Amino acid sequence: MGNAWTAVNACCDTVGMATLPPVLDNPALDAAACCSPLARAPLSAAAAEQLAGVLKALADPARLRLLSLIQAHAGGEACVCELTEPLGLSQPTVSHHLRVLLEAGLVSRDKRGVWVYYRAIPTALTALAVVISPATTG
Amino acid sequence: MGNAWTAVNACCDTVGMATLPPVLDNPALDAAACCSPLARAPLSAAAAEQLAGVLKALADPARLRLLSLIQAHAGGEACVCELTEPLGLSQPTVSHHLRVLLEAGLVSRDKRGVWVYYRAIPTALTALAVVISPATTG
Repeated sequence: MGNAWTAVNACCDTVGMATLPPVLDNPALDAAACCSPLARAPLSAAAAEQLAGVLKALADPARLRLLSLIQAHAGGEACVCELTEPLGLSQPTVSHHLRVLLEAGLVSRDKRGVWVYYRAIPTALTALAVVISPATTG
Repeated sequence: MGNAWTAVNACCDTVGMATLPPVLDNPALDAAACCSPLARAPLSAAAAEQLAGVLKALADPARLRLLSLIQAHAGGEACVCELTEPLGLSQPTVSHHLRVLLEAGLVSRDKRGVWVYYRAIPTALTALAVVISPATTG
């Protein structure tokens, strides 16, 4: 499965905009800011494969709810123990879905004591949103 | 499979923002402008199902490339006859993928003479992008 950064960078490469000067000291934000590949130029087969991988990670009701719960949670982070009850799923199932989101580069994890806390990666979600967005009008 | 409008409206209902005054005479744009549900409040099971349906329609390399080709094409529209060669897929396969995008509310079609022309629905893509976007900072 592709990683959100790789996919977006591949998309930017596709439209030849990856060499834009950095906007901030954050390569992910630069990637997000650099292009709207779906709308601007035909996506290469390789870029489409990577982007589809990230979107597949997102295209699941349980994972969408997890991402939503994590972001809506106090401090924008949550541990597995706080996510099982609202979803009505077992801890192994929740852990599986979180792993898919992690591997896609959509969430990060931080182990503190016995628990692992998950946090959405806003720049990854922004980058995906930019890639999906249609060409700006005007 | 859900329709992009239905999914976004369900998301907006979830966060209780569907009663915002209309921004423009376009309910889809209003929906897009009204909320960022993944980030703002836990997504309901029903809204997550609908949104996952639309994302699944998008989460396919051939369909991503089709959406990209259509938008990059002259006039922002293309017929099946213009899409088979760049994708290297048969016409029935391309037609199948276009039907999935159509049913998800991501493209519209217009029959002119013997050909059917497909066009991306920018407001649907914008709405999806808004739903995916993280909470705005600041």
